[in-house]
Amino acid sequence: MAIQVAVCGPSACTAQEERHAHRVGELLAARGAVVVCGGGTGVMAAVARGAHSAGGLVIGVRPGQGHAGASPHLSAVIATNMGEARNAIIVWSADAVIAIGGSWGTLSEVALAMRRGDIPVVSLGGWRLVDADGAAVPGILAVDSPERAVEVALGVTTAG
Amino acid sequence: MAIQVAVCGPSACTAQEERHAHRVGELLAARGAVVVCGGGTGVMAAVARGAHSAGGLVIGVRPGQGHAGASPHLSAVIATNMGEARNAIIVWSADAVIAIGGSWGTLSEVALAMRRGDIPVVSLGGWRLVDADGAAVPGILAVDSPERAVEVALGVTTAG
Amino acid sequence: MAIQVAVCGPSACTAQEERHAHRVGELLAARGAVVVCGGGTGVMAAVARGAHSAGGLVIGVRPGQGHAGASPHLSAVIATNMGEARNAIIVWSADAVIAIGGSWGTLSEVALAMRRGDIPVVSLGGWRLVDADGAAVPGILAVDSPERAVEVALGVTTAG
Amino acid sequence: MAIQVAVCGPSACTAQEERHAHRVGELLAARGAVVVCGGGTGVMAAVARGAHSAGGLVIGVRPGQGHAGASPHLSAVIATNMGEARNAIIVWSADAVIAIGGSWGTLSEVALAMRRGDIPVVSLGGWRLVDADGAAVPGILAVDSPERAVEVALGVTTAG
Repeated sequence: MAIQVAVCGPSACTAQEERHAHRVGELLAARGAVVVCGGGTGVMAAVARGAHSAGGLVIGVRPGQGHAGASPHLSAVIATNMGEARNAIIVWSADAVIAIGGSWGTLSEVALAMRRGDIPVVSLGGWRLVDADGAAVPGILAVDSPERAVEVALGVTTAG
Repeated sequence: MAIQVAVCGPSACTAQEERHAHRVGELLAARGAVVVCGGGTGVMAAVARGAHSAGGLVIGVRPGQGHAGASPHLSAVIATNMGEARNAIIVWSADAVIAIGGSWGTLSEVALAMRRGDIPVVSLGGWRLVDADGAAVPGILAVDSPERAVEVALGVTTAG
Repeated sequence: MAIQVAVCGPSACTAQEERHAHRVGELLAARGAVVVCGGGTGVMAAVARGAHSAGGLVIGVRPGQGHAGASPHLSAVIATNMGEARNAIIVWSADAVIAIGGSWGTLSEVALAMRRGDIPVVSLGGWRLVDADGAAVPGILAVDSPERAVEVALGVTTAG
Repeated sequence: MAIQVAVCGPSACTAQEERHAHRVGELLAARGAVVVCGGGTGVMAAVARGAHSAGGLVIGVRPGQGHAGASPHLSAVIATNMGEARNAIIVWSADAVIAIGGSWGTLSEVALAMRRGDIPVVSLGGWRLVDADGAAVPGILAVDSPERAVEVALGVTTAG
C-alpha cells in the first residue's frame, strides 16, 4: 500500500499558500504518495491540482453529501455528510499530516493529528501555540518550504 | 468526475458471492467507475481484486484506525475509526449501491442507501424484506447476475 | 449508571405505532431506564412524550446541527451533524434496542444493532427478513405488545 | 429546551483545573444549563461531579463503545464509537463552549467550535494562538475565573 499524506489548509488562502500547496502536491505525487485532503477550495484545490499534474492519486474527503464544491482534480470523492468531523477521518487516513497556512478547520486537523500522536505533523506557515505560561507548545514540526515539508512528512533526510 | 459505485457484502461470504463480487469489480472498472467498498475480506476483497485486475480505482473505507485487515488491492484506504458508521460514508460516496449476499452490516448499508432515497440500490442474492402484514417491501432492485447488477446500477439498458 | 434503551421507529408512523411508542416510553421511565432516541417526530416524539410524562430521562440524538425539529420532551439534545450515521451512535449508546414499526432508517438501526451483536434487539410490528433461500433470518426478537417489548429489552421475565 | 454548555479540558489535569471545572459544573447546574462533556477523567470528571452535586444534568459523549472509563456522575452516556470525532458532536450539541486548560484534544474542540463560528468559545487557562506573523489570533474569549467563564458562556453581564 502506498504512503498516504494528508494536506490541510484554509479554503480561502493566500497566493503563496496556494503555490506551496501546489508544489507539495507535485512532490508527494512524484514520490508515489497518495494525497488525502478535504477536496474543497484554496489549499485543498491547489494540492489536488499539483498532485494530479504529476500523475498522482488524490482523495477528497468532503464534509457534505455529494460532489458539490469538490475540486475537479480529485481521483475519488469520499462524501462523509459529517461536516468538519470529516477532519478526524482525514487524520486517521494519513501516515503524515502537512498543514499549510492557518484557519480554525486546519487547526482542528493539526490538533486531532497531535492527539493521535503517532504520525509527523508538519506546519508550513501555520499558526503557533503558546501555553498559559507563555511557553511554546512543542510537537508540531515547523518548516519553511514545500520541499522541506515533504521531506519531514516522509521521513526523508537530505544532505545539507 | 468518474461515477462511483459502492459494492457491499459479507466479510465471510460463499464461493459464489466471491465470484460475483470479483466479476462486478471487473465490470465496473471496465466501464471507468470507481469502486467504493469496505476494504475488508469476503465480498469486499473480491470486488477490490476484480476492479484492480481490470485496472480500476478502488477505495476502501475502513472501520478502524489504520491499514490492518485492509485488502491489498485497494488504491487508497480511508481509515474512519468510526466502526460501522463508516457504512453511512460508503453510501453517501456512491452514485449507486450493489449489495452481494446478506449480512447485518450489508443490510445496514442497503437500508441507509434506501433511506437516502436518490440512488439505485441493487441486490444480488441478498436478503428480502417483508412488512408486518406479510407484503414485500418495495424499492430494492433484485437482480440475478453480476452483469445485470452493473447494468442496473449504471442505468444501462441492453437489448434482450 | 442507569440502563439505557434505544427506541427507534418511523418519523411518520401510524396511530397504533404512536400509542405503542408512548407506552414503551412510560414503561421504560417507570423502570428507571434512560431512553435514547432520534429525537424527531413520529415514534421518536411519542416515546419521548411517554418517558417524559413518567418523569424519565430522554436523550435525542439528532441528525442535524441544532434543535430544529427536535421533540420538546427531550431532556437533552445531542446534535451530531452526521445525518443517519447518528443511528450508529444511538445503537452504541444502548443496552437494548426496541424498534416500533418499519422504515429504512429504523431498519438501519436494527441492522447496526444486530451487527453489534451483544444486545437484545426487539421488534414490535416491524419489518421481517427473509434470506435468498426464502428462510427467515433469525436474531430479531419479535413481540406483540409494548409491555412485552420492555420486558424482553430489559431481560425481565413475568409469570404467565 | 434548556441551554446546553460543553465543557472541555485535559483528561490529565492540574489540581487547579480540576477545581475550576468542578466550580463551572456547579455554576452551570445552578443556572439550569445542561452540561455536555467528554465523560472521561480530569476536567471531564470534575465538571460532571460539580454539575451532579448541584442537581444538574450532565451528558457524557464518549469516544468508545460503552461505559468503560465513564465518569460515575453522568446522567446519560452517549457512546459514539467514533474516537475523537466525538469532539465535533460535543461542539454541535452546545450553545457555548468552555475550555479549561490545554491539550490537543481540547484544542480540537476549541478549533471546531471556532470553525462553527456562531457560539461563544471561552478559555480558562488554555492555550493561546499566534499566527505566522506573530500576531495573536482573535476570537477565543479568555477569562480568569470559573464565575467569569460561566457568565461569558451564558451571555450574562454582572455589575462590576
